[in-house]
Amino acid sequence: MSGEILKTISRAIVALVSECRIHFLNKGLHSRAVDPSNVAMVIVDVPKESVDSYRIEAEKTIGLDMNRVFDISKTISAKDLVEISLQDENNLRIKFGSVEYNLALIDPSAIRKEPRIPELNLPAKIVLDAGEFKKAISATEKISENVVLKSDKNSFTIEAKGDVEKLTFTMAGSELVEFNGGEAKSMFSIDYLKEFCKVANVGDLLTIYLGTNYPARFSFELVGGKVRVEYILAPRVES
Amino acid sequence: MSGEILKTISRAIVALVSECRIHFLNKGLHSRAVDPSNVAMVIVDVPKESVDSYRIEAEKTIGLDMNRVFDISKTISAKDLVEISLQDENNLRIKFGSVEYNLALIDPSAIRKEPRIPELNLPAKIVLDAGEFKKAISATEKISENVVLKSDKNSFTIEAKGDVEKLTFTMAGSELVEFNGGEAKSMFSIDYLKEFCKVANVGDLLTIYLGTNYPARFSFELVGGKVRVEYILAPRVES
Amino acid sequence: MSGEILKTISRAIVALVSECRIHFLNKGLHSRAVDPSNVAMVIVDVPKESVDSYRIEAEKTIGLDMNRVFDISKTISAKDLVEISLQDENNLRIKFGSVEYNLALIDPSAIRKEPRIPELNLPAKIVLDAGEFKKAISATEKISENVVLKSDKNSFTIEAKGDVEKLTFTMAGSELVEFNGGEAKSMFSIDYLKEFCKVANVGDLLTIYLGTNYPARFSFELVGGKVRVEYILAPRVES
Repeated sequence: MSGEILKTISRAIVALVSECRIHFLNKGLHSRAVDPSNVAMVIVDVPKESVDSYRIEAEKTIGLDMNRVFDISKTISAKDLVEISLQDENNLRIKFGSVEYNLALIDPSAIRKEPRIPELNLPAKIVLDAGEFKKAISATEKISENVVLKSDKNSFTIEAKGDVEKLTFTMAGSELVEFNGGEAKSMFSIDYLKEFCKVANVGDLLTIYLGTNYPARFSFELVGGKVRVEYILAPRVES
Repeated sequence: MSGEILKTISRAIVALVSECRIHFLNKGLHSRAVDPSNVAMVIVDVPKESVDSYRIEAEKTIGLDMNRVFDISKTISAKDLVEISLQDENNLRIKFGSVEYNLALIDPSAIRKEPRIPELNLPAKIVLDAGEFKKAISATEKISENVVLKSDKNSFTIEAKGDVEKLTFTMAGSELVEFNGGEAKSMFSIDYLKEFCKVANVGDLLTIYLGTNYPARFSFELVGGKVRVEYILAPRVES
Repeated sequence: MSGEILKTISRAIVALVSECRIHFLNKGLHSRAVDPSNVAMVIVDVPKESVDSYRIEAEKTIGLDMNRVFDISKTISAKDLVEISLQDENNLRIKFGSVEYNLALIDPSAIRKEPRIPELNLPAKIVLDAGEFKKAISATEKISENVVLKSDKNSFTIEAKGDVEKLTFTMAGSELVEFNGGEAKSMFSIDYLKEFCKVANVGDLLTIYLGTNYPARFSFELVGGKVRVEYILAPRVES
């Protein structure tokens, strides 16, 4: 796979957990995990069509220290070709250029149980440039710990209130890539949203599925659509 | 106005104070303040011709937390068009692109009294690239806390003395944009000069009016001459 | 000399010591020093042909605070022309553009005695791009404190072992600039190697002379071959 894919997967997961299970499925790579506070879930999928070569004898699950994989991925260029292989029951080999890492696996049963992905009925769907969202969230963090995401028939707004100031970020339906005008409003922790956005760059698509005082889904299409990273985040209740 | 103007004004003022009065005068924006130690004064002027549109019902003075304005200005691109308006007696609105900030005003009477601008009779006038001055000041700070600015009929020099070394920065009259060869010599705190220079970039003009053991004026022409920022700095007396 | 040469010399020396002797010899500049732990030696040579102008009345040795020279060199551009001269018995003058530094000398007899350069019989010779070596060393430091350098008839390898992972960097003889296939293997401290590499950039040549559990020589050709910096490093013994 390209170095960019490994960088993206590991970045996406370390936003919430340090250790996780990776499933080598017939259809490709899959991973999901819930953060220690049970506030957010990450779901990562890399279809086998997204990588240059994919060969498994049987479906298999391994446990990995993703912090180490993320550190290793920082030494890889986005365009490097990376070969990942299971050498034996205990080691994952990550190879690129003249470099070879051998990383000890973690027994999957020693890693926290994987979450069930919830069915959520969310009225509003907003599709926008992930870079725009990232910029807005980054501006809110100086003002407050929480941000209100709101959708009505005209526009999608991001609002943060501080002691002496209020920031409102408004995008009309016509300025969004896709927008269904559904009514929804929920408040979220800025810290989590900021972590989610780290995986994304200008030009990546972000789809937000929003309800009212309800968990929301933030679904990123990354690396030119080759990697899908979805975060589900519990709302904060306004006091 | 352009984002660059708001960035420049707020940067200029936070060099000395966090809260200040802004005057919306018929001729444009004006602000001035003295730092808490009474060592330096900042005077900012933006003629109404420097902004894209300027409309006031009557001259008005407001109080602002400039640190917050400066933070907000960091999220604005230099080329963004920014609209600043008084929404009511209590709020300033700063609007650019899809973003809107509402910032609570401060009662001007709660802010430290504004200084009178002193009349100074200063024999030496030196005009140079602000970027050159910034670079020189930045080099001195590793050596000493103070710097001596000196002008004689031949040249303008910046001198810093440390325990084991001396740095001399010499510019002949012919290397300066303008120079009257006046005799003057005063010592100043490098920390203040460094703060002043943060507002300026290579290509901005800086005019220094210098006396002997006397306050000096550092007058910056910024944003292509649209904004004038002047600092007046008290000298340090050599022991 | 060019600013780049002064930057390179001072960077090379401060990797190991803060004060050192500089010899102004008929053939050019020379300096050597051992670090306070006696683990590494640096040898710097700048032939007089490498500088734009070189004039000495007699060979002379001075003592310098290289940390200060290094700080000063940071304010110089690589392409600036720098003039270094002894003004009197107590001062070195460093002049570039409109800037002049006067730096107090240190009595050479107050500086730690210079080392004798050892004769080392080292079977393996490896020549590679210093930038490649720098990148590899930088990747190892997250994993371990030590790195094993190994040469056999086929390839040169850099190996680091951590608690849960192993990094191997392998370069076949054909991928190296020059390689004699000598058998050798020694372990070294990553901290030292990292310091050595700071002096080098992509495109600089590094020649490594390696033995088995024996000191190695790391010889850098810098500034287009105008400056030679050699480090000799004692091995660590595997426990």
